Amino acid sequence: MKEQMKQQTVVNGVNVDELNNTIKAIKEQPEIAKFKFRAANKWESGSNNRTVINEYYGAGQDFTRTRPFVVENDEPPILLGADKAANPVEHVFAALAGCLTTSLVYHAAALGIELEEVESAYEGNLDLHGFLGMNDRVRNGYEDISVTFKIKANAPEEKLQELVRIAQNRSPVFDIVSNGVPVSVRLADQ
Amino acid sequence: MKEQMKQQTVVNGVNVDELNNTIKAIKEQPEIAKFKFRAANKWESGSNNRTVINEYYGAGQDFTRTRPFVVENDEPPILLGADKAANPVEHVFAALAGCLTTSLVYHAAALGIELEEVESAYEGNLDLHGFLGMNDRVRNGYEDISVTFKIKANAPEEKLQELVRIAQNRSPVFDIVSNGVPVSVRLADQ
Repeated sequence: MKEQMKQQTVVNGVNVDELNNTIKAIKEQPEIAKFKFRAANKWESGSNNRTVINEYYGAGQDFTRTRPFVVENDEPPILLGADKAANPVEHVFAALAGCLTTSLVYHAAALGIELEEVESAYEGNLDLHGFLGMNDRVRNGYEDISVTFKIKANAPEEKLQELVRIAQNRSPVFDIVSNGVPVSVRLADQ
Repeated sequence: MKEQMKQQTVVNGVNVDELNNTIKAIKEQPEIAKFKFRAANKWESGSNNRTVINEYYGAGQDFTRTRPFVVENDEPPILLGADKAANPVEHVFAALAGCLTTSLVYHAAALGIELEEVESAYEGNLDLHGFLGMNDRVRNGYEDISVTFKIKANAPEEKLQELVRIAQNRSPVFDIVSNGVPVSVRLADQ
């Protein structure tokens, strides 16, 4: 069969041929694996602010989307906000959930495991003594996070357990949130 | 002056009287500082999934918003998605930006520093060798993140530098992303 007549293999909505081509291209040219992601935030008032996400660098090129994505932050009234949007520690869950799920789905596709449904639930404990600077022994962020996956697929439970392990072993945001990242913060020259 | 006739002190859109009342209430009853945040995610197809954020527990009560907040995740075409939304590692910036900014704004309000504008820019380096499992020495997540603040306020630069330090010292998401959190992930009983 000629190359251009081959059907593309799509599993779980993931084009597995493209995934394999990506891996092949990175083997030949390792520097195309380097990405830079970017965002810009603007304060509105109180706990309300907006993050704009648009440009990124990858595979040796700069990319700009057709339109920017905007994520709004606020706090509920009990944390002195107007509840216009989810709060930043809740947005950590959106990032973590998105990444664990996509990692699970892509690696399932690579293994040829067809998924029907993937749902996950997140809970994190946070003590305000940290943020308010009231107790040095209490950290500012989550003390712990628990995640529970429910997966429907035509595969035995051992395979699903393996997928949950792979998702943790490969997810960029799971790595960021579990292991931490060096973050440098500076004030621009005035 | 009678209590109910007092004017509320609002700085940077933050009700400082309420902030002080919150601190006072936590001093009297430390357990009301304990919060539990929650989210639920549902996979759509490929890299597209949605996180729903609604309920949380805090100050001894369960809260439900008037409507849930939805955060969509996708990947750009170069990462095999349809670019319907920002991707999970970009959403980390929304969380980090929102939290650093709110921490800066609240603590500025407590110190009586009136802010005019607060903007911040985020950049993170990520190497796909990690996610793709192609090189064990390359981590899955960001190798580093840099943040630059621009602040307009009627205050000397030393004060603004101090605010940027306080934001890092108190922000829950800065703590999560810098220091990591224990995350337990499990598959629900089938």
